[in-house]
Amino acid sequence: MRIEGKAFTTIWLGDDAASIHVIDQTRLPHKFEIVTISNVAEAARAIADMQVRGAPLIGVTAAYGVALAMRADPSDGNLDKACAILAATRPTAVNLKWAIESTRRRLSGLPPNERGPVAYAHAAAIADEDVALCEAIGEHGLALIEAAAARKGGERVNILTHCNAGWLATVDWGTATAPIYKAHEKGVPLHVWVDETRPRNQGASLTAWELNQHGVPHTIVIDNAGGHLMQHGDVDLVIVGTDRTTASGDVCNKIGTYLKALAAKDNGVPFYVAAPSPSIDFTMDDGVAETPIETRSPQEITHITGRAADGRIETVCLVPLGSAAHNPAFDVTPARLVTGLITERGVIAASRDALARAFPDRAAKPQ
Amino acid sequence: MRIEGKAFTTIWLGDDAASIHVIDQTRLPHKFEIVTISNVAEAARAIADMQVRGAPLIGVTAAYGVALAMRADPSDGNLDKACAILAATRPTAVNLKWAIESTRRRLSGLPPNERGPVAYAHAAAIADEDVALCEAIGEHGLALIEAAAARKGGERVNILTHCNAGWLATVDWGTATAPIYKAHEKGVPLHVWVDETRPRNQGASLTAWELNQHGVPHTIVIDNAGGHLMQHGDVDLVIVGTDRTTASGDVCNKIGTYLKALAAKDNGVPFYVAAPSPSIDFTMDDGVAETPIETRSPQEITHITGRAADGRIETVCLVPLGSAAHNPAFDVTPARLVTGLITERGVIAASRDALARAFPDRAAKPQ
Repeated sequence: MRIEGKAFTTIWLGDDAASIHVIDQTRLPHKFEIVTISNVAEAARAIADMQVRGAPLIGVTAAYGVALAMRADPSDGNLDKACAILAATRPTAVNLKWAIESTRRRLSGLPPNERGPVAYAHAAAIADEDVALCEAIGEHGLALIEAAAARKGGERVNILTHCNAGWLATVDWGTATAPIYKAHEKGVPLHVWVDETRPRNQGASLTAWELNQHGVPHTIVIDNAGGHLMQHGDVDLVIVGTDRTTASGDVCNKIGTYLKALAAKDNGVPFYVAAPSPSIDFTMDDGVAETPIETRSPQEITHITGRAADGRIETVCLVPLGSAAHNPAFDVTPARLVTGLITERGVIAASRDALARAFPDRAAKPQ
Repeated sequence: MRIEGKAFTTIWLGDDAASIHVIDQTRLPHKFEIVTISNVAEAARAIADMQVRGAPLIGVTAAYGVALAMRADPSDGNLDKACAILAATRPTAVNLKWAIESTRRRLSGLPPNERGPVAYAHAAAIADEDVALCEAIGEHGLALIEAAAARKGGERVNILTHCNAGWLATVDWGTATAPIYKAHEKGVPLHVWVDETRPRNQGASLTAWELNQHGVPHTIVIDNAGGHLMQHGDVDLVIVGTDRTTASGDVCNKIGTYLKALAAKDNGVPFYVAAPSPSIDFTMDDGVAETPIETRSPQEITHITGRAADGRIETVCLVPLGSAAHNPAFDVTPARLVTGLITERGVIAASRDALARAFPDRAAKPQ
């Protein structure tokens, strides 16, 4: 999508055809900086430190991480080591595991000297596939927004989103934002309520930034506000992303998603989840009971970074000395609260049957 | 309650028996500063700028504001003017209107030369009454915590609270915190989940600070986390405050309260509202439709103030240039989601009948 008028993706191969470049998302919205990743340790650090984040982009970055490792040492031992290092970076997103395993499967049968180039090609294919998935989600979700616009007689459609399931979380288009970008480009009048998304403020710093850069009307609200907006008819639909959707349709996504789903249900607001199939985990059933929820550093809550009046980037402490904080990063929205999953194969119910019907190739067997 | 081991209230008369002193709550948790209020304009500014906040404390401050005005000029014209200035500061809290009208009624029949001393005595009586109300709420709520502790066989009781309905929001004890302080003093093992409460972070800066000063075990969580904690059995009860409770039991409180009430309902967690009777508005019925919701400055969302590493207090911007923010300050929790109201007359259902039975003196007639 566009940054200062120029088309970008979130990750691309360097001119040396070896290193990869990513946008440093920890510096947004205050600074737009490009980071070069030259080895697997840097790829792992970029994921763990959230320079890249978002389930699909994490997967692509990990695939390139394996490629960088294979370029340095294509042995079986190094393949195992690279996969282990990358898999340990973030526990919740299923795309990470999926991308690593897919790459490992592609490479393990090959003689070591062939692994480097094949790994790069495989990572590029995962990236291209992600773009295609997001675009397809965009087209299916566009129909939902157009239908809402028709119901409102052409009045602007208000869409609430949580966290950043935007193009910054993918390679391009985004998952939750793909329908929004498609509708915006088609001239459907719309406005996005952007949940701030504490503690890392991915909504206020990333989603707002990318909508801003692309010219999509939006307003930042605190995470507490969505229920109030829905009570007063100010939200026509909710579209969020997912880090992992179980075989039964439970949705693990950024913490706070569940609260918005409850409010949507209570107010009859449709609640959609943009769910590309790599984020569906058919090995898991009960999302609340089974999903491993990452606990991140309390410092993400107790401290925050922003732009001081003189332009300096400054980190400040928000809490009293002596008060502890607890920072679970995701929650699970039970399928019963989800109106539909927007997948690359169409909008389907968040149910075991609908998922199995839409993805018979994956539902039947463990990944 | 205690600050650095010393007993404090949030508001007290100065040695000159004219000015009043308050704790500047905009400086907490980083600085403990006492502010002197010498005239009605300063009282109004302290309320509008939230140096004092919390429905009960706003009411007491307004009553002292009228007293300060009467000391300067006890004419009918100045009484009207002072009441108008103070009533315009915050639109949502019903205690403000209640305290101002109660003071006006007390004074308007008196000859002007008697108004000053009577106004001070009336403000002091409102303050004393608030302490008594909070203590009674504390005793009634204590029984709920003791019952939860008994159910858990002596394991610690986890209580979630939102915003600051602590002693800083009242004169002493607090409303939602009164049961917590009473239980803590009685040795009931408990732990408080403190919602950060964006955008002004009253939880992380005020509730955490006062629990910390008083030695009550607590952990700060982001506003997004409550649902997840409840899904996993980590919350035994929720206790929040209220800015206005309608005759039918709908509860207007800090924005985000409604989302926690939905999560509590969804997970079978008891959701209690500490509601001193001055916060009950018997003239209002449907909370969602009728409660005026204050919209505050977007800057409360886009900027935040904290303590830099070198101890300086610094304000930083959190959002991209060009992104707007919308800042409704309260939401309404429908009575159907409220397990009970903890009033000074006992724990009652959040219903028209129960409210009318508990407060027959106020339910029958408009205030």
